[in-house]
Amino acid sequence: MGTNPLLRGLLNLPLVTLIVQKFGGTSVGDADRIRAVADHVARTRADGHDVVVVVSAMGKFTDDLIRLADDVSPTRPPRELDMLLTAGERISMALVSMALGARGVESASFTGSQAGIITDTDHTRAKILEMRPDRIREAIAAGLVPVVAGFQGISTDKDITTLGRGGSDVTAVALAAALGADSCEIYTDVTGVFSADPRVVSKARRLPKVSFDEMMEMAATGGRVLMLRSVEFARRHGVPLHVRSSFTWEPGTWIVEEDPTMEEAIVTAITDDSSEAKLTIDGVPDRPGVAAQLFRALADASINVDMIVQNTGTNGLTAISFTVALTDLDEASAICNEVKALIGATSVTSDASIGRVSIIGAGMKSSPGVTAQMFETLSNNGINIEMISTSSIRISCVVSADKVAEAVRILHTAFGLDAA
Amino acid sequence: MGTNPLLRGLLNLPLVTLIVQKFGGTSVGDADRIRAVADHVARTRADGHDVVVVVSAMGKFTDDLIRLADDVSPTRPPRELDMLLTAGERISMALVSMALGARGVESASFTGSQAGIITDTDHTRAKILEMRPDRIREAIAAGLVPVVAGFQGISTDKDITTLGRGGSDVTAVALAAALGADSCEIYTDVTGVFSADPRVVSKARRLPKVSFDEMMEMAATGGRVLMLRSVEFARRHGVPLHVRSSFTWEPGTWIVEEDPTMEEAIVTAITDDSSEAKLTIDGVPDRPGVAAQLFRALADASINVDMIVQNTGTNGLTAISFTVALTDLDEASAICNEVKALIGATSVTSDASIGRVSIIGAGMKSSPGVTAQMFETLSNNGINIEMISTSSIRISCVVSADKVAEAVRILHTAFGLDAA
Repeated sequence: MGTNPLLRGLLNLPLVTLIVQKFGGTSVGDADRIRAVADHVARTRADGHDVVVVVSAMGKFTDDLIRLADDVSPTRPPRELDMLLTAGERISMALVSMALGARGVESASFTGSQAGIITDTDHTRAKILEMRPDRIREAIAAGLVPVVAGFQGISTDKDITTLGRGGSDVTAVALAAALGADSCEIYTDVTGVFSADPRVVSKARRLPKVSFDEMMEMAATGGRVLMLRSVEFARRHGVPLHVRSSFTWEPGTWIVEEDPTMEEAIVTAITDDSSEAKLTIDGVPDRPGVAAQLFRALADASINVDMIVQNTGTNGLTAISFTVALTDLDEASAICNEVKALIGATSVTSDASIGRVSIIGAGMKSSPGVTAQMFETLSNNGINIEMISTSSIRISCVVSADKVAEAVRILHTAFGLDAA
Repeated sequence: MGTNPLLRGLLNLPLVTLIVQKFGGTSVGDADRIRAVADHVARTRADGHDVVVVVSAMGKFTDDLIRLADDVSPTRPPRELDMLLTAGERISMALVSMALGARGVESASFTGSQAGIITDTDHTRAKILEMRPDRIREAIAAGLVPVVAGFQGISTDKDITTLGRGGSDVTAVALAAALGADSCEIYTDVTGVFSADPRVVSKARRLPKVSFDEMMEMAATGGRVLMLRSVEFARRHGVPLHVRSSFTWEPGTWIVEEDPTMEEAIVTAITDDSSEAKLTIDGVPDRPGVAAQLFRALADASINVDMIVQNTGTNGLTAISFTVALTDLDEASAICNEVKALIGATSVTSDASIGRVSIIGAGMKSSPGVTAQMFETLSNNGINIEMISTSSIRISCVVSADKVAEAVRILHTAFGLDAA
């Protein structure tokens, strides 16, 4: 973690800061974009900063490779799929490094393996076990700009692995943490994090600053800019993130530790997520261990359960509702029906036409009226709430899928988030 | 090196043989071709053989990458170019391995680095220093078909290197040697090695068998099927090569040690090469050290000199002619002009419109009339010979470029090589 630049000056510390700059697929989508990225890195360097670049594969290249794989094999063998897909970053990192060289910026590219990103052996969704970025440190010390392949690592079995969805962000954050970088810039095709999805709410505003906690809640409830995983990683290691656009290069959104001296907005953002479905198992005998039996069976099938709500009726029977990813709905339904027989429940029903609307804000912790305001706003507009779940800085409501966009818009207005 | 299968049977040795099968760019050019390759490997496996597959990048993929590189950088930084280009084999090897899996053949792909191909640090044309194919051996022992990236290795500095032109063949031969394979099959888009280029001589015949020595002479004088380097490597390590087509799968040409018990054809093949130019430096004082001075200057500029002819006249002056690659002609001319001044020669002339025609045959060693027959054949057809060079099994003549095709055809007929 970097010291404040002013303090550095006072302490006579060098003013050089280390910045990790990560460029996503659209940011390196073609030769023009790669030249623009190199120009920007060169400017950052000229400003006196040390830079480590992390890149994704170019544009839709990964999709093209997956199509080829599907064309030669009915399955997607994980080890070979990882070997295949990691070719994508290899191409973009070599090209970015060449483009830097053409601008007089000395540079060298490094694969995940060369950058010392050691993972477990869980192909296509490996987790980082250890960072040993010795070659990256040496390259920085030698005055080079290292260009590192995002998304990939090498397993403890010496096989090539990939880090799963959002993996390039994880690479950038992990490198920033391991190198003690002052910040990690995530360049993408949007200008930052917004108070709501701008495609849903035309008056959504870009947020100059969001706390890690808020960003994690946003990522978990439908925010599409950053994956939960990289935000968690950044918070754990105290790496300030800066999400910004590689098309406009303007300052974007800083994601940082909450600053206790500042007054917090009660509601920072509204998120929506229509990727889930609801399952309800009804007439469940209300005795200990029944819920555990159900969720153990789902966990054993690697089905992630998100919201869970349980209501006990007066007849000693209870209804359990929960949400799962739409893609898991059929399998989860089947499991519920098996468990239904075992525990003596009466029925299993599912609803694929739901959506979740969430309001998020660190100031909520000390503002007890927010929940009531949210429920009133929805009910005044005739929107029925099917499920509710809350955290200290988030309230989520499940509503009918066709009401999601309307719910986001009226909540955005009701909580005073609309741009002037 | 493998024992004869019959002998293995008599000695009660296992009949399993290990075959390295190398597939070039056209052989893995698209998903259809990759499936065909996987079918063939599966058949070889079903016949009871152990197989190691070596692959090149798909079709013109490498050319596409070079175009991208040229688009972002005016130079081609060697380290980054190697990083870029090695993405090509990574893609084809993963796809071939997946296609094998789809046919029930257990398989795993390995990069040059994972296959233990250790090279020097001379990027874009690295030489293999050491083979440590431990993971390949383990994979074979575990019943897998290893699919190895051709053309690439890892340097003693832990950087990714490429082996230069024909590098995938070198990978295949080096692996075959290190693993003690029984043979190395080079699959390409022609059906084998021919008695002359079939595009020049319609009556050219496929040769069922060629000796290493003959093949080396052919490769050195314009034969386009195999590079000199991989034939040299195969001969040094006694690896029998089998050049054949991945489009017809029929038996092709075996390249093996000369069999002393067989009578040798006097002339096996005619080759032609129009990629060189001739330089003549005239009026050179005939004193020791003059030629050395010239060729040292050319060597210092990394210019490969091929044929050299020197004629001393009666006046104590001598003329030195030599050939260089057309691409080196301008630079070589400039060097000759510098050296001309230093050594007091009178003139430098160059001729880019030349071609070399060679006849090759192991039987030539014991047939003194061949040289005369070649010269007579050319002169009877009005073709002037500008330079001559010979080895024990080859005679090369430089002729005017526009006479090359005709010279090849008449020599092919004169030496009885025309197909019936």
